[in-house]
Amino acid sequence: MGMVGGGKDAFIGGIHRMAANLDGEIELVCGAFSSSPEKSKASGESLYLPANRVYGSFEEMIQKEKQLPEGERMDFVSIVTPNHMHFPPAKMALENGFHVVCDKPMTLNLKEAKELRDLVKKTGLLFCLTHNYTGYPMVKEARHMIKDGKLGKIRKIVVEYPQGWLATKVENKQADWRTDPARSGIAGCMGDIGTHAENLAEYITGLKITEMCADLTTFVEGRRLDDDGNVLLRFENGAKGVLHASQISVGEENGLNIRVYGETGGLKWRQEEPNTLIATWLDKSAQNLRPGVGQNYESTKRHIRVPPPGHPEGYLEAFASLYRNFAITLRSRLKGENPDPIYLDFPSADDGVRGMVFIETVVASSNSKEKWLKVQE
Amino acid sequence: MGMVGGGKDAFIGGIHRMAANLDGEIELVCGAFSSSPEKSKASGESLYLPANRVYGSFEEMIQKEKQLPEGERMDFVSIVTPNHMHFPPAKMALENGFHVVCDKPMTLNLKEAKELRDLVKKTGLLFCLTHNYTGYPMVKEARHMIKDGKLGKIRKIVVEYPQGWLATKVENKQADWRTDPARSGIAGCMGDIGTHAENLAEYITGLKITEMCADLTTFVEGRRLDDDGNVLLRFENGAKGVLHASQISVGEENGLNIRVYGETGGLKWRQEEPNTLIATWLDKSAQNLRPGVGQNYESTKRHIRVPPPGHPEGYLEAFASLYRNFAITLRSRLKGENPDPIYLDFPSADDGVRGMVFIETVVASSNSKEKWLKVQE
Amino acid sequence: MGMVGGGKDAFIGGIHRMAANLDGEIELVCGAFSSSPEKSKASGESLYLPANRVYGSFEEMIQKEKQLPEGERMDFVSIVTPNHMHFPPAKMALENGFHVVCDKPMTLNLKEAKELRDLVKKTGLLFCLTHNYTGYPMVKEARHMIKDGKLGKIRKIVVEYPQGWLATKVENKQADWRTDPARSGIAGCMGDIGTHAENLAEYITGLKITEMCADLTTFVEGRRLDDDGNVLLRFENGAKGVLHASQISVGEENGLNIRVYGETGGLKWRQEEPNTLIATWLDKSAQNLRPGVGQNYESTKRHIRVPPPGHPEGYLEAFASLYRNFAITLRSRLKGENPDPIYLDFPSADDGVRGMVFIETVVASSNSKEKWLKVQE
Amino acid sequence: MGMVGGGKDAFIGGIHRMAANLDGEIELVCGAFSSSPEKSKASGESLYLPANRVYGSFEEMIQKEKQLPEGERMDFVSIVTPNHMHFPPAKMALENGFHVVCDKPMTLNLKEAKELRDLVKKTGLLFCLTHNYTGYPMVKEARHMIKDGKLGKIRKIVVEYPQGWLATKVENKQADWRTDPARSGIAGCMGDIGTHAENLAEYITGLKITEMCADLTTFVEGRRLDDDGNVLLRFENGAKGVLHASQISVGEENGLNIRVYGETGGLKWRQEEPNTLIATWLDKSAQNLRPGVGQNYESTKRHIRVPPPGHPEGYLEAFASLYRNFAITLRSRLKGENPDPIYLDFPSADDGVRGMVFIETVVASSNSKEKWLKVQE
Repeated sequence: MGMVGGGKDAFIGGIHRMAANLDGEIELVCGAFSSSPEKSKASGESLYLPANRVYGSFEEMIQKEKQLPEGERMDFVSIVTPNHMHFPPAKMALENGFHVVCDKPMTLNLKEAKELRDLVKKTGLLFCLTHNYTGYPMVKEARHMIKDGKLGKIRKIVVEYPQGWLATKVENKQADWRTDPARSGIAGCMGDIGTHAENLAEYITGLKITEMCADLTTFVEGRRLDDDGNVLLRFENGAKGVLHASQISVGEENGLNIRVYGETGGLKWRQEEPNTLIATWLDKSAQNLRPGVGQNYESTKRHIRVPPPGHPEGYLEAFASLYRNFAITLRSRLKGENPDPIYLDFPSADDGVRGMVFIETVVASSNSKEKWLKVQE
Repeated sequence: MGMVGGGKDAFIGGIHRMAANLDGEIELVCGAFSSSPEKSKASGESLYLPANRVYGSFEEMIQKEKQLPEGERMDFVSIVTPNHMHFPPAKMALENGFHVVCDKPMTLNLKEAKELRDLVKKTGLLFCLTHNYTGYPMVKEARHMIKDGKLGKIRKIVVEYPQGWLATKVENKQADWRTDPARSGIAGCMGDIGTHAENLAEYITGLKITEMCADLTTFVEGRRLDDDGNVLLRFENGAKGVLHASQISVGEENGLNIRVYGETGGLKWRQEEPNTLIATWLDKSAQNLRPGVGQNYESTKRHIRVPPPGHPEGYLEAFASLYRNFAITLRSRLKGENPDPIYLDFPSADDGVRGMVFIETVVASSNSKEKWLKVQE
Repeated sequence: MGMVGGGKDAFIGGIHRMAANLDGEIELVCGAFSSSPEKSKASGESLYLPANRVYGSFEEMIQKEKQLPEGERMDFVSIVTPNHMHFPPAKMALENGFHVVCDKPMTLNLKEAKELRDLVKKTGLLFCLTHNYTGYPMVKEARHMIKDGKLGKIRKIVVEYPQGWLATKVENKQADWRTDPARSGIAGCMGDIGTHAENLAEYITGLKITEMCADLTTFVEGRRLDDDGNVLLRFENGAKGVLHASQISVGEENGLNIRVYGETGGLKWRQEEPNTLIATWLDKSAQNLRPGVGQNYESTKRHIRVPPPGHPEGYLEAFASLYRNFAITLRSRLKGENPDPIYLDFPSADDGVRGMVFIETVVASSNSKEKWLKVQE
Repeated sequence: MGMVGGGKDAFIGGIHRMAANLDGEIELVCGAFSSSPEKSKASGESLYLPANRVYGSFEEMIQKEKQLPEGERMDFVSIVTPNHMHFPPAKMALENGFHVVCDKPMTLNLKEAKELRDLVKKTGLLFCLTHNYTGYPMVKEARHMIKDGKLGKIRKIVVEYPQGWLATKVENKQADWRTDPARSGIAGCMGDIGTHAENLAEYITGLKITEMCADLTTFVEGRRLDDDGNVLLRFENGAKGVLHASQISVGEENGLNIRVYGETGGLKWRQEEPNTLIATWLDKSAQNLRPGVGQNYESTKRHIRVPPPGHPEGYLEAFASLYRNFAITLRSRLKGENPDPIYLDFPSADDGVRGMVFIETVVASSNSKEKWLKVQE
């Protein structure tokens, strides 16, 4: 793995590295950790990389690595930069034969996203978008229960992502680019975390959102992008829903959560206590579903690292599962084997386009007097 | 107290009676418990009422009681019938000089509500609408914290009332009238429980909803009224919000809950665990506020019955607080004293009109292609 | 009902009155509310009692009420005084033909308790000891599940009652008598709340404690009775257990809770959230059992007042269920009917003796160098 | 790092490897993964190790690695075998100049433990015992709050470790050795998880247990070691406590939890939801302390990997913190620098001896008729 971005004072780069390390399936071999060559060098050194594999730019990294012999050069690029810097390295990596792992949202805008998706298709290379929350075991369990019809036809979906860290005019590296249209895109809160909520709802239910009615707000004076949004949803099968996300909900940490109600059952899951999935039923007691207790689906089991129940797995493990699935799939491919479908389970370029469609529609809807906007490419 | 409705197989009548009994301030002295005189007699008997104070109709009750000497006759009427039978007895009671306690929503439609409100004003009699959830001590605490500015300017309000009991085509006395437009009015779920959510949000925050965008649904085939609804809200001070209520959310019991976020703090409260109010703050740990622990507001203290903390109070106690506040206010009035403002705290005819406006607007919005409808009389 | 004790500034008297009021089955007709006749008068007045039914002493009350015609005189006495004043009025009431409801622990010492139990047997009158926590619906559910063998043979029982209100040298009416051996008996914390824990464990499991090993402590300097205690338990069927109670566990409110583990299942219940009973199973997901959801036992159903699930019932309702059961049983008896066994379910004089045995054994054990003391009369 | 034990079908070996991998500070370079050389080879291969660094026995590993040049040979040995195989490789490693990480309990018996501790002292090498639960950030927070006097003098400690996985006669590799005295030592449940509880209580409070009174039981027929135990505790400062651990508490997962009450405050922490530490106070609301919210202690901050609050860290992260602290301390030492005291925080050989004293005393106490046994070497 070669990394683009993720220098010393970045938050998400370290997360990606721990996620990649955890299972011992991936080795960081090179990186272009910063747009400043000095910072990149310093970061590489603190990561115990040899100096000749630490590059001053992603362009240099891709070019130089390409010249290394197979087996020695990086197998894939991991892109952990702000949104506006996803597309250029992803495009160049694909065009030079490198597989790609990329942070979300996929690109700065829908146009780039479609171009990237086309390139993935054309090159046939692997692409993984790190919608990390789909890596939790109980998210897998929820998805498979619904697929299996345990809840009957889905009627209602409520998905929320409240945070509070931008309730005031925060100024730091993390806040700065997220509230800057040039680096973040047309949406703030909705791009940063609304897309996680959208992705989670569609992933768990297997249903597409078809129409939206949104009300986005910028509460903090002087901020240039939305910091809160409430959205009514309609799904392809007639289900109704609500999505709301916020970065001004004081005291909320990373409160992503989802509730799904079908004709015969319901499910509730909260990211902050990810190892419990509450199942509710018509005329029966609610159950606390847990990893390793009772009958989990096969996919759930393969996403559990600590077999005895009650040893909590968290955010890094869920994140690591994306990397692990990607690595196992890539290894199968390098060996010429058919990948195990259970490990083919990581967010794709299609999911990335879907996220960008969400962003563009939610912003358009908020600006529109029309009640319902269709969600379409 | 004389009761209208609340015969043996009714649910809410027994609740009202327990609520009225609890504090030893109110005595049930007569009733017209059913539109069937036989059922009314049987109900009266099982309640240990003398036969001559059990009436065959509310008209008979009001007329006969009026002829009894003061001190012996009932002081007020409690109306616990289905929605379409709120207005007639309430009107007649007021016109004959009796104070009124009435179940919610106030009437079958907005027109009746306004007429009733005018009558309350004209007669100067006391009127209490049983939006019982506002009786909980920690709801009082929340209201006073916000009034006091502890949360700063309010920005976001999320209020939910999920239930699951109508997820299938239930047929029983409770379900029947609630899904019958002739007895329930133009809204189903939104009238029955959506109004509780609306009332709670406005009571706690002290803010009025000014605009709504609604999407109501009838999921169960053959049902004639909405059984689910999602609504975007805008409040008078610029706050944004979401209200959703449902009777098809399988496995949900009476999940009324509210979250309020201001500039400097947030609050969370759930009806099913009503003795905990979670307060969240900028850069400080969240607190679990509890009745009798630390510094409660004076109003909160007066709504606690069991002084040592940790002995849970519930739904009946909250309901009883409305009756108790009404009774204490009435007693002050009968004695010619000024009522204590702390006990003047029970939902009024104005709240009743507000609820009917909510119902009419939410239904109109759901049927409209316009995004935002104003909430106005 | 005639009340002994429970004047204006007492805590528990008001609780008993609300509990007796709630269901409309019991009327307070007289009382001797204080050892001070003036206070008694004032209390009676504020309770709307006629002056001639408010007495200056329990002796006067029992004598005068006895002379009133049947139907007019009180049917039973409710004793809500400190421990040392349970025995005298209870004895006199029974000797004069009045049934008795009595607060716990039954008496000041075991000798009195046995004498009282004998008197109950001899007179054949009804006696109810208000171990109120056994009135909760989910406590009934737990008891019936275990009786029914759902958990298999019981192996382990953990029962706790932590409070924090005596963590410092509190001085008020409630604290004063509870820490005074002359009024409280030989145990402080263990008598006041340890007995609740003991009673709950034996009630739910149907098993008797046979041996104990205790370590009681007085943490607050100058206090004359224990304010904390830890006890190892052995039960008649070979089950093992732990009981600990405390009044110096800072921040604990009324944290009574119990966990029971059998060969095939487990149960957890907490008084502070009494409407949830968690059931755990071998190789199956845990369930959240709730009143009114799924299949409750018949006894559970009859102890639910608010049929739709999710409207929390609390401490007063549980307390009221003892009074209601007592009243229904008494009414059957007065009518010469066989009492419904479901309502015969209230703590008896035998439970009272059991509690006093617990107190005497736990104190003896704490003072002993022997590891195990037998629990026997 | 070279590993002893932890072959393919072992549970704890994989955990240690993930823990060592996570932070990118440690590289697995060799191993003797099984007492069967074939299994060891196969395990090494699946871990991408070169064949010449996979050994057939720990003796071979230590001898051969010693001959490799510095910088190439392993720096330390990680021992993840059953209890009876801790001492031999630990001893040999230390005697050959290798630092040691060792699973708990330290040895098969107290005699070995003391010998090992002496050897650690004599060689001056680093030794880390993996009492992994002390690695959680909120455990650090609790320890520092108590050290800092926030709770006042400690009075009561309740520590529990309920599990249910051995409620029936389980037969698998994990269960087999844990219930075999030859491989596990004289205690079953108490050795396996009771020691974790003991270690956690002493670590968090900084207080030593001085006396114990224990009641251990073997509930499952035919089992040769205890599967449940209840213990009264006395601490050096006069505090009292309860410790109970169980492997037959049906439905419990890994329910390690602790409550500590001092004169002015209390703390509660549960391993299954490790990111919340509840603080309770005299006359103030309880607080939910969380990693990254408000003012954490410096040590807490350095044990958080995911800066934004609300991204749960779990068991593997806590485990990894021991490895990371050990690695950082080792690196300082290799560089000749003074180690940062914050990273010197990992369980030592002294803790290991303490655990063995606990095991021997708890078993002796259970077999004794004396009430209190002293806890001493």
